Amino acid sequence: MSSALSFTITHRLNGTLARTGIIATPHGQIETPAFIVGGTKATVKALTPEQVKEYGGQAILANTYHLMLRPGADIVQAAGGLGAFMNYDGPTFTDSGGFQVFSLGIAYKKGIDAVAHTQKGDAKQATHTKDQLAKVTDSGAQFRSHIDGTKLMMTPESSMELQHAIGADIHMAFDELTAPLASHDIIEAAMDRTHKWAERCLTRHDELNAEHIAKGENLQALYGVVQGARDESLRKQSATFLGNLGFDGYGIGGVFEPGEIPSVVRWVNETLPDDKPRHLLGMGSQPADLFLGVEYGVDTFDCVAPTRQARNGALYTYDGRINITNAKYQGDFSPIDRECDCYSCQHYTRAYINHLFRSDEILGATLASIHNERFVVRTVDQIRESLKDATYFELKQSFLSRYYGDTLPTGVVI
Amino acid sequence: MSSALSFTITHRLNGTLARTGIIATPHGQIETPAFIVGGTKATVKALTPEQVKEYGGQAILANTYHLMLRPGADIVQAAGGLGAFMNYDGPTFTDSGGFQVFSLGIAYKKGIDAVAHTQKGDAKQATHTKDQLAKVTDSGAQFRSHIDGTKLMMTPESSMELQHAIGADIHMAFDELTAPLASHDIIEAAMDRTHKWAERCLTRHDELNAEHIAKGENLQALYGVVQGARDESLRKQSATFLGNLGFDGYGIGGVFEPGEIPSVVRWVNETLPDDKPRHLLGMGSQPADLFLGVEYGVDTFDCVAPTRQARNGALYTYDGRINITNAKYQGDFSPIDRECDCYSCQHYTRAYINHLFRSDEILGATLASIHNERFVVRTVDQIRESLKDATYFELKQSFLSRYYGDTLPTGVVI
Repeated sequence: MSSALSFTITHRLNGTLARTGIIATPHGQIETPAFIVGGTKATVKALTPEQVKEYGGQAILANTYHLMLRPGADIVQAAGGLGAFMNYDGPTFTDSGGFQVFSLGIAYKKGIDAVAHTQKGDAKQATHTKDQLAKVTDSGAQFRSHIDGTKLMMTPESSMELQHAIGADIHMAFDELTAPLASHDIIEAAMDRTHKWAERCLTRHDELNAEHIAKGENLQALYGVVQGARDESLRKQSATFLGNLGFDGYGIGGVFEPGEIPSVVRWVNETLPDDKPRHLLGMGSQPADLFLGVEYGVDTFDCVAPTRQARNGALYTYDGRINITNAKYQGDFSPIDRECDCYSCQHYTRAYINHLFRSDEILGATLASIHNERFVVRTVDQIRESLKDATYFELKQSFLSRYYGDTLPTGVVI
Repeated sequence: MSSALSFTITHRLNGTLARTGIIATPHGQIETPAFIVGGTKATVKALTPEQVKEYGGQAILANTYHLMLRPGADIVQAAGGLGAFMNYDGPTFTDSGGFQVFSLGIAYKKGIDAVAHTQKGDAKQATHTKDQLAKVTDSGAQFRSHIDGTKLMMTPESSMELQHAIGADIHMAFDELTAPLASHDIIEAAMDRTHKWAERCLTRHDELNAEHIAKGENLQALYGVVQGARDESLRKQSATFLGNLGFDGYGIGGVFEPGEIPSVVRWVNETLPDDKPRHLLGMGSQPADLFLGVEYGVDTFDCVAPTRQARNGALYTYDGRINITNAKYQGDFSPIDRECDCYSCQHYTRAYINHLFRSDEILGATLASIHNERFVVRTVDQIRESLKDATYFELKQSFLSRYYGDTLPTGVVI
């Protein structure tokens, strides 16, 4: 079967795993490295698609689990697919729902950090707690809707069916996450299950793509998702196994800190086929992620943190993050960041955005989101250019030392 | 002193008080009749100024009382005035704060409708209730901030000083409202006080404009605000008195129903100087207001209802108002209104907007607000054109009968 996407590597940075490239999809190209904009519920929170394009967003990632519950994959399909539904004509991704198996299962009502150090014992004990909404078996994951408690089942096959109905350009295989510090047995069992699910996803995906061909529709692409937590041998085993299955690209799943990128992400990307695009799932909440991800071979990232933080008034500047609701900005008529070229910085002051937040005005969330998203997109653009002219390490040094000062995340070296 | 605005009447409709015209301000022209967009706290809720311009909004009205409390008139002034503060380069208005004397005084915690039938007795009794935040004396109104309880005083002079600091193109004189069905004595006392305040406003306004001239700044315009509730002789007395003071234009204050426009607004507009623009304060929440207001001589309106209703999912269509959150729209892939030319109707379906509302997504408020505002602006545009080619009564008949069906507001005749 012909591929649903092509990936062309255009530059490499000697001595690193970093590369620039172009992912071509039926809805346009993505210049990599690229930050993929979070659009969980088929909307980039507080923004129109035109605003996303204006700040340089190249592609949007929505979530299968959330769209399955509301409005339902059938509604998105009947609308003509994700892009048509949300009025976005660029490339789109969907996450598989696998992360929700974790966040609504073992981590439900506790948070990921809380379970990170507590998931111990054998696989059976660890995946069944009293108040969780998701339960994993070999056949799939049984959920209860976090909205109305409805019982539902997601299997590798149904995840593929849902994703093909939602109709993004790039899908993720249905995977099982574990707490980052779970026991070796639990991590290995989840990885093995993820591998079996990956094979089933691929089979069903190929069948569904054959139907698209028959109907004259666009092919859709599928990424396998590498698991294995923070275990070198499991991560390499997972990357080898999935790499041999011949996916269109690869997602790197799991939960880890920026300082772990040079190990975890490197193990994976040194092992995966070099000629396929690699997506770091749910990372990119701060500049260190972006630099280290790219340096260790990641082509695309996604993260909802820039808009979530924006809605809380936490805004990125080249000199670090500020909280715009602080009283000291009430009479500050400078832009959020003097060096930023975003719509918000070109037209509004800190004083005005402070006023909007203090007055609970929606426009505050919009202007703040545009700024944070532009900051991340522009940083990745700068990283991409620095790979082409081999000035990456100068950029990394100057950017991270200025942004973090003395507060570099643990394990991040510049 | 030269006028801060000019008003040119371009057409009249025989047998009515309706006219078309152009108000020229230092920040551009307003083609009248015009709907003035509500921007109470120096933001049109959920929208950028570019979105306001795109849907055809010609001018924005902010509120002096709210801006005085937050961020403070001094901050707005230091930003370069209202337009510069909010990134809007078109014409601007400010309301005086007079309405808050009423809504935070006699009507506080009761609502305007609740007091409409209860304010009786003499003026002293009626303007002092236990939990009100505002108290009126001849010198001005004593407020407590509804935000933090801070005591503050607004006088005709301070209202002018605040409005000149905020720096809109068109100001309103500080007035006193009464409940619509208050006793004759109360209405007359408030009207007399409003007249005395109007003289004091004009004196202080002229002094402040003289300062603007000395500094080479734009002149600002002042409208007198006609009161007198639903009493014909008081309304005419008020219009005569204020008309003789020579304001740049006139606001029509008070609280009344669309069905009362043919009486209350007619009394006022038959009496006011014909060559000055007239603004109906806080009306225009439904099409009947727009038609009757224009027919009885109103040049501009303002109302926050279209965006407030939009944020609640109540959307205007040519066949009446719908609630987009209703389950029947979940799979409806038509636009809000097939005949609407707004951004939201050109690019999104009822199904998508239903999804945004059910998912509590901010973009829902944005798309809904654009639609309702465009609907009102476009209706006023159509009314304006119908005055020019004398098709007004055909438009009124077809529009209102289709919109309301059998549910025309009381007193509205088509």
